[in-house]
Amino acid sequence: MQKYAKILESVRTASPLIHQITNYVTVNDCANITLCIGASPVMSHAPEDVIDMTKIASALVLNIGTLDSKQIEGMLVAGSVAADRNIPIILDPVGAGATPYRTKTAQQLIEELPITVIKGNAGEIGTLAGTTATVRGVDSGGVAGDRKTIVRDLAARLGCVVIMSGEEDLISNGSRVAGVRNGVPLMGRLSGTGCMASAVTGAFAAVAPDTMDGCIAAMVSLGIAGEAAAKVAAGPGSFKPAFLDAVAALTPEQVAGHAKVTEY
Amino acid sequence: MQKYAKILESVRTASPLIHQITNYVTVNDCANITLCIGASPVMSHAPEDVIDMTKIASALVLNIGTLDSKQIEGMLVAGSVAADRNIPIILDPVGAGATPYRTKTAQQLIEELPITVIKGNAGEIGTLAGTTATVRGVDSGGVAGDRKTIVRDLAARLGCVVIMSGEEDLISNGSRVAGVRNGVPLMGRLSGTGCMASAVTGAFAAVAPDTMDGCIAAMVSLGIAGEAAAKVAAGPGSFKPAFLDAVAALTPEQVAGHAKVTEY
Amino acid sequence: MQKYAKILESVRTASPLIHQITNYVTVNDCANITLCIGASPVMSHAPEDVIDMTKIASALVLNIGTLDSKQIEGMLVAGSVAADRNIPIILDPVGAGATPYRTKTAQQLIEELPITVIKGNAGEIGTLAGTTATVRGVDSGGVAGDRKTIVRDLAARLGCVVIMSGEEDLISNGSRVAGVRNGVPLMGRLSGTGCMASAVTGAFAAVAPDTMDGCIAAMVSLGIAGEAAAKVAAGPGSFKPAFLDAVAALTPEQVAGHAKVTEY
Repeated sequence: MQKYAKILESVRTASPLIHQITNYVTVNDCANITLCIGASPVMSHAPEDVIDMTKIASALVLNIGTLDSKQIEGMLVAGSVAADRNIPIILDPVGAGATPYRTKTAQQLIEELPITVIKGNAGEIGTLAGTTATVRGVDSGGVAGDRKTIVRDLAARLGCVVIMSGEEDLISNGSRVAGVRNGVPLMGRLSGTGCMASAVTGAFAAVAPDTMDGCIAAMVSLGIAGEAAAKVAAGPGSFKPAFLDAVAALTPEQVAGHAKVTEY
Repeated sequence: MQKYAKILESVRTASPLIHQITNYVTVNDCANITLCIGASPVMSHAPEDVIDMTKIASALVLNIGTLDSKQIEGMLVAGSVAADRNIPIILDPVGAGATPYRTKTAQQLIEELPITVIKGNAGEIGTLAGTTATVRGVDSGGVAGDRKTIVRDLAARLGCVVIMSGEEDLISNGSRVAGVRNGVPLMGRLSGTGCMASAVTGAFAAVAPDTMDGCIAAMVSLGIAGEAAAKVAAGPGSFKPAFLDAVAALTPEQVAGHAKVTEY
Repeated sequence: MQKYAKILESVRTASPLIHQITNYVTVNDCANITLCIGASPVMSHAPEDVIDMTKIASALVLNIGTLDSKQIEGMLVAGSVAADRNIPIILDPVGAGATPYRTKTAQQLIEELPITVIKGNAGEIGTLAGTTATVRGVDSGGVAGDRKTIVRDLAARLGCVVIMSGEEDLISNGSRVAGVRNGVPLMGRLSGTGCMASAVTGAFAAVAPDTMDGCIAAMVSLGIAGEAAAKVAAGPGSFKPAFLDAVAALTPEQVAGHAKVTEY
């Protein structure tokens, strides 16, 4: 698991600038966790601003949690700059499957941009895979079929890495399929842990020699930090500051020693 | 007080989806408290998205804390779907009385939509009641006249439940008037406790057999959680995580045992 | 240092209403710190609302952290009302120097409005001063030349107070130059401490007999609160609630006793 520890070290050393066009619900948490993991966050959505901001960024994170037409315009403009510069684009298709607008927007972003990583819950990933899946608001209502097959086939079809979060996070680049079993249930009781994972995935994808390894390292790192935070938290409220503290204090040694990764 | 405890149990069992069109200042707190009380939050404001989101929601919360024309458009569209589906609509008229734009928007929402519950501070409710009232920014500057009469008359005139928050929260459906004396002063020193109360009122109104009882149960539940949180908080900053923890840990037994409700 | 302690007392006594048009990343922190220092925050950006809101405010804070064309329109409208009413206007030029849109917008606000205080990091202030400076996202990448000269010359040229934040905060009104050495490194590891400082500067500028003294008092107060919070925080996550607690608990005696101000 030294491989994943090294990617965390690279994040800390390079401190990549992560440009995030994201929702207004969890944006503060995304900024703070980006700082805590060792990267540098910048949020900007105006079409007039995103071209120049993406030009100096090392990864672009697109999160459709509270989308509207102006924001989508900003995402497409920023995404085309990211594509030209060949920096990773992370898509978090929040609520895809819950409403047609979200599903269509996620699909549009996938069609028009060379997305590098798609990270969502089972319902969102299942929706994009065309499987029977349900999403209730922004929560997964489940997915039909074998999850490993779904992520691998979607990744192969789109030529990107797919992360399906859950009790076991599943990650695939279309050939490899890996599972990550780090993390605690408290992470599901706090708003924004999914969004935070996408932000951190951006930081890891920005520096990782292999994108799939970077995604695994991101999920492992947050899961281990969550495990540490759960030991000091009294509930979902105190879990948030404890989680940010644990992410900031996370060492490569912890990652190497506690990673629970299975290659299938 | 078993009646109120049972409504909390119903929230936990049903986990209703609460669609919130709200301000960007306290939206994260609203999402987290909705989760902590046992319901499921979703935030969405784009007119293209809100129709489908409201179709799967169990209550709609409209909060005008940082309103603009696009958001009002989304509120009216979502509200008409909520009306068709007969799900509760909660209005938090943040800052009504402080500026004409806020007062007029609150009045427009009340005229065009079958609002189920209006929850505001004394100045906001007084403004909507047409009494002499002052609002300074988003803080109540007080109201002239008997508060119980104001809430009862406004509720009777509009055919809805009115909650006037304060040291004693007053709740009326036009015939009954009840007072809730749970809560602590620290709740007034944190931004967003009023908005959080509206979010939680949405969750309780979604499942309560009687809306007024649901509103009382919501105010009692948050007040008791606030009392518990104040015991471990060192100030307004640490009160927030402690409050969320206390809401998540709140039991029906606590509600039944500590509710301070007076029917007038 | 009694002078600075007295300004804190005035904030607590007057509880000025601080109208903030700011970014959606740190807006909740800005609202809470405004409350904790003893003032009253209100956030509003719609051109339809800001005229009336600025009419009842005691200071206006403009923060371009997540700007767009609609928000700039609101800033200009609010700023012209603030100018007519002669209340302080604080500008936080977040990211000026990182993108042309941010630099141009900051310059436009400075040209069209009688800005009272500009508060930014070294890169942002250097950019506005026309010095060689770099900004990476929203983080300072440094500035060439003598910092004291840069802040004094910019303040003299624009006829306002300039605050350049850093390990030593430098403050000038064009003739006096002062340095504040309060604060801790943890403040730089949390998103939003800069924005919070601008909000609090608005509160102090609203009541201070002399604007430069008000700015010094604001930086001293937050620095001392940060020092206190660092003693109980386990990392950047727990630092935030501890910082808000410390700001709320801050006494004039602490300010008088711990201020580290140098007049150059």
